[in-house]
Amino acid sequence: MTGNERTADETAIPVVEMRRPRWGDPGRVTELPAAAAALAGDATEDRGIAPESVTPGDSRVPAAVRADLEAVVGAEHVVGSDDARIQHTRGYSTPDLLRMRAGDAADAPDLVVHPADHDDVVRILQVCAAAKVAVVPFTGGTSVVGGLAPDRAGFAGVVSLDLRRLDRLVEIDEISRIATLQAGLRGSAAEALLRERGWTLGHFPQSYEGAGIGGYAATRSAGQSSAGYGRFDEMVEGLVLATPRGTVQVGTAPRSAAGPDLRQLILGSEGAFGVITGIRLRVHPTPKTRLFEGWRFASFADGATALRRLAQDGPLPTVIRLSDEVETAINLADPAQLGGESTGCLVVTGYEGEEREVLRRRDAASEVLVDAGGTALGADPGESWRTGRFAGPYLRDPLLDAGVLVETLETVTYWSKLHELRASVTAAITDTLTASGTPPLVMCHISHVYSSGASLYFTVVAPFGADPIAEWAAAKTAANDAIRAAGASITHHHAIGRDHRDAYHDEIGPLALEALRAVKATVDPDGVCNPGILL
Amino acid sequence: MTGNERTADETAIPVVEMRRPRWGDPGRVTELPAAAAALAGDATEDRGIAPESVTPGDSRVPAAVRADLEAVVGAEHVVGSDDARIQHTRGYSTPDLLRMRAGDAADAPDLVVHPADHDDVVRILQVCAAAKVAVVPFTGGTSVVGGLAPDRAGFAGVVSLDLRRLDRLVEIDEISRIATLQAGLRGSAAEALLRERGWTLGHFPQSYEGAGIGGYAATRSAGQSSAGYGRFDEMVEGLVLATPRGTVQVGTAPRSAAGPDLRQLILGSEGAFGVITGIRLRVHPTPKTRLFEGWRFASFADGATALRRLAQDGPLPTVIRLSDEVETAINLADPAQLGGESTGCLVVTGYEGEEREVLRRRDAASEVLVDAGGTALGADPGESWRTGRFAGPYLRDPLLDAGVLVETLETVTYWSKLHELRASVTAAITDTLTASGTPPLVMCHISHVYSSGASLYFTVVAPFGADPIAEWAAAKTAANDAIRAAGASITHHHAIGRDHRDAYHDEIGPLALEALRAVKATVDPDGVCNPGILL
Repeated sequence: MTGNERTADETAIPVVEMRRPRWGDPGRVTELPAAAAALAGDATEDRGIAPESVTPGDSRVPAAVRADLEAVVGAEHVVGSDDARIQHTRGYSTPDLLRMRAGDAADAPDLVVHPADHDDVVRILQVCAAAKVAVVPFTGGTSVVGGLAPDRAGFAGVVSLDLRRLDRLVEIDEISRIATLQAGLRGSAAEALLRERGWTLGHFPQSYEGAGIGGYAATRSAGQSSAGYGRFDEMVEGLVLATPRGTVQVGTAPRSAAGPDLRQLILGSEGAFGVITGIRLRVHPTPKTRLFEGWRFASFADGATALRRLAQDGPLPTVIRLSDEVETAINLADPAQLGGESTGCLVVTGYEGEEREVLRRRDAASEVLVDAGGTALGADPGESWRTGRFAGPYLRDPLLDAGVLVETLETVTYWSKLHELRASVTAAITDTLTASGTPPLVMCHISHVYSSGASLYFTVVAPFGADPIAEWAAAKTAANDAIRAAGASITHHHAIGRDHRDAYHDEIGPLALEALRAVKATVDPDGVCNPGILL
Repeated sequence: MTGNERTADETAIPVVEMRRPRWGDPGRVTELPAAAAALAGDATEDRGIAPESVTPGDSRVPAAVRADLEAVVGAEHVVGSDDARIQHTRGYSTPDLLRMRAGDAADAPDLVVHPADHDDVVRILQVCAAAKVAVVPFTGGTSVVGGLAPDRAGFAGVVSLDLRRLDRLVEIDEISRIATLQAGLRGSAAEALLRERGWTLGHFPQSYEGAGIGGYAATRSAGQSSAGYGRFDEMVEGLVLATPRGTVQVGTAPRSAAGPDLRQLILGSEGAFGVITGIRLRVHPTPKTRLFEGWRFASFADGATALRRLAQDGPLPTVIRLSDEVETAINLADPAQLGGESTGCLVVTGYEGEEREVLRRRDAASEVLVDAGGTALGADPGESWRTGRFAGPYLRDPLLDAGVLVETLETVTYWSKLHELRASVTAAITDTLTASGTPPLVMCHISHVYSSGASLYFTVVAPFGADPIAEWAAAKTAANDAIRAAGASITHHHAIGRDHRDAYHDEIGPLALEALRAVKATVDPDGVCNPGILL
C-alpha cells in the first residue's frame, strides 16, 4: 500500500504511543492513496471527534479498593483520569472506533493500575477478587474482537491492569536460543532490545506497532512471517501466569510427554485465567539476508495450490501470501504490471536468514512456484509489500473520516474446504451489506499456511449507511454463521474476545466449555479475570 | 543391534500378537549377541515363568455390571478368562515383567471389554461410572510407566477397555493430507492400511510392533523419525474423546486462535479424562527415497553441538541420533570401524522423501556435520541402525532370563542444561546401583532434537542383586530426583502413568494440578477413568 519510506527494516520501527481512536504513530500523517480515495467518493464530512471530548463518566471502584491498590503499587501508579481511562477503553476493531467517534465510552475502565512486577500483579488480582472488581489485562490494547471490554454486570467496577512497566528483557540463553521477556513489552520494543544483542523473535503481526508480548500470547497472535518463524504460540517455551490464587509456571522443556501441554491451555486464554506476566520465547539470529519477490498466478485457486505444495512438500519461504484478484488490483498502483489479460493474483514470497541458505531455499521454492504455473515478477512487488507492510491500518482512519467503512475478519480451515469457505463467507458479507444498501468490496488473502490448511483473511470496504455499526454487525454475524456452517474455526489469529464468544462456544461444544470453566473456577473462583471474555 | 534381516521396511512389519510377559512377535527367537551375552556372564538360571502359570485371582466386578456391559457390546465381547486378564495386566516396563515373572498378577483387570465403536465406549464409561468401576483404556498395552495399573482402592473393580475392534482407516483427505483413524489400530496396522493408498504417518517409536494409535495420542509418543515427521502430538489434527459425560470433539482447523488448544489438553491425558476413540492425523506420501548414514564425532559434546546446529539452523534430517561412547561401543559389533583412537560417538542421520529433495537436504546437513567436526562413515552404520531399529527390545527377555536387568528412562531439557543433566542422571543411577551391589553400565543417546533442546535417553544394564525390583526402584527414584533437581521434564515420550506421578506433580505445581483435576471432575465426576494415572 503506502509507506515504503519508513519500514525498510521493521525491527527499527520506533515504539509509538497510539492515541485512541486513531491507529499508529500520532505524528504520522496518512493521505488516502488514489485507489482508496476513489472508494470514498465525494464524502468529505469529518465523522471523527477528538478523544479529549469523550468522557467516561464517574469511576465506580470503591475508595477502599483504590486505597488497597495504591498500597500495592504506589498512588502514582493508580490512575483514574479521564484520559487514561479513555486510552484503555476497548480496542481497535472498526466498531470500537466508531463507538469512540460517536462519543460512547461506556466500556471505559474505572481505574488504570500499573504494576511493577509479577508479585504486584498477583496482589492486584487478590485485591480485586476480594472486592469483586473485574480485571482487564492491557499490554498494547489492540484487540479487534472486544477482548478489552468485559461484562460489567455483577462487578463493583473494572480495573485496567496495564502491564507496560513490565518491560524488561530479563535474559537470553544463547545456547538454547530462548529469551525471557516481561509481558508488558511492546513487540517493537522487544525487537529493539533483542536486536542490540543480535537476535529477533521474527513476530510481525500487522498490530506490531501497538501490540504487546503478553497480548500476543493471550490471543495466539500470528505474524506475517509465520511460515518461517512460526505462530506466536509456537515460539513460546514457557509462561508465568498470575492468578487470584497465586502463580502458575509452565514449560520445563521444549517438548514433553508429561501430561497435557499446559502452555497450550494458557495460550489463548485471553485474561480469563489470569494475567501472563513473563514469557520465555524462541529467538533467532538477526537475518543477514532478506529477499522478497512477487509472483503472478492466473487465479486464486492456482495460487492456493502453489502455496499448498510449498506447505506440504517444502521448502517454505519465511513469508508467503496470496492475494485474490480484487485485493491484487486494489493494492497495486498499476495492476497492469502483473501482465496477462486479467490482473491475476499476486503471491509474495520472502526469505530471511544466512545468504547461502536463503538462496538455496529461494531456488527450490521458485522451482515449485514455476511448476505450479507462477510467473516471476522479480523483487519489486515483494519489496513493495515488505516496506509497506504496516501501512494498511493507517488508511482506516482517513477512510472512516470520509464515510467509508473498512474492517477485516479471518478464519482458517483445511485445504480441501478452502475455496468453498471463501465463497460462502464472501457471499454472506456481500449479500448482507448489499441488502442494507451498502454494497461492499470484499478482498481476500492467504497469509498463513500449514501442511493441512490455511487462513483466509477478508478485508471489507463499504460506504457508510445510516448506521454503520449495525450494518457491520449484521455482516459480521452472517460471516460467522458461514464460517461455522463450513466447520471452520471462527478465528485464525484475531482471537475470541467478546465478539466471537457465541461462535466459539459452538465451535468447542458444551462439555469442553464446561471443562474450561472448571479451570477458570479453580484459578479465579470469584470470576474477576476478564469476565465475559472467551468464556 | 540385531535383526537386519527383517526390518528392511518398517512399514511392512506384520501386526504381531505379543504375549506377556515377553516382547514382540512370539514366533521370533532372539539369541543374545556376543556383546550382550558377555554382560550376562555365567548366569544360566531361567528366571522366567510361563504366563499360563500366573493366575489373576477372582474377578471382582459385580454380576449386574457385567450384564450391563454385555448388554452394550454383546456377551462375546466381555471376557473374564484368566488368559485375557493376564494379557491386559500392566505394561512392558522391566519391573512389570519382573513382577509377572514372579507370578504377581495383582494388577490384573477383572474383565476385558471390547467395544465396537465410539458409542459403545461412551456407554461402557457410563455403566462403569454408575457402578464405580475403574476403566483402563487399552490399545497396545505397551506402557512402561504403569499407565495400565490404576489405583483400585475405592472401586468396585477394574475393566480393561480394549479398543482393538476400533481398527478402521475411516477416511483420507488427500488434499489436506489428513487421515481419520480409529484409536484401536496398532501403529503397524495403520501403516499397512495407509501404505496401500500411498501414505505414511512416519511415526515409528520403538514400541511400534505393539503400540496402538490411541496410546500414541494419550501418552504423547515420539517416534524415531520425529525430526522429519514430528512427534505424535504434532501430527494430530483432531481428536474424539469419549467421557462418562458424553463426547468431546476437538480440532476444527490446523491452527486457530480460538482459545486454548484443546487438542493439547487431551493429548497426554492418559485415559484420565476419558478414552480417545478417533484421531485425525497428518499423513505424508510414502517416501520414494531413503538414505541413512553414520558419522563419527570425537565426543558426545561435539556430537551434541552438531545436532544443535542442525536443529537450530537446519536442515534437519528425518532421523537424527547421537549415541554416547558407551552406547556406541556396545552397539557396534566392531567399534574399531569408527576409527580414531577412542571409539568416539556415533551419529546416525536418515533422510526420507523425494530423491532430489533428499539429496539436497543430505548435502546441506552433511556440510554442517563436517563443519562441526564429524567424520563421514558412509551408509553402513546408518543402514545397520535402520534395519535393526526395532530389535533392541527383543534382547531384554533373554537378558532377564540370564539374570541381567535392563531398563530405560528418558528426559528432555534445553541445550544449555543438557550435559549437566546427563552427568547428574548418570551419576544418580550409577551410584545407587553400585551401592546396592549391582554396578551398572549406563548408556545415553539423543534421539529427538528441537531448536531449544533435546531428549536424553538412558539405557541401564546391571546384574540382578537379591531384589532386582527394589534395586531398580531405588535407581529410578534417584534418577527422577536428579531430573527434577535439574529442572528438566520427567519424561520426553514415555509419559507419566503411575510411576512418574509424584515427579509430575512436582513439575507442574499445585495450582496447575488442581486445574487438571477440575477438568477431570467435569468430564469424569465419578473418577472412574484410569484412576491414579497422571493425576
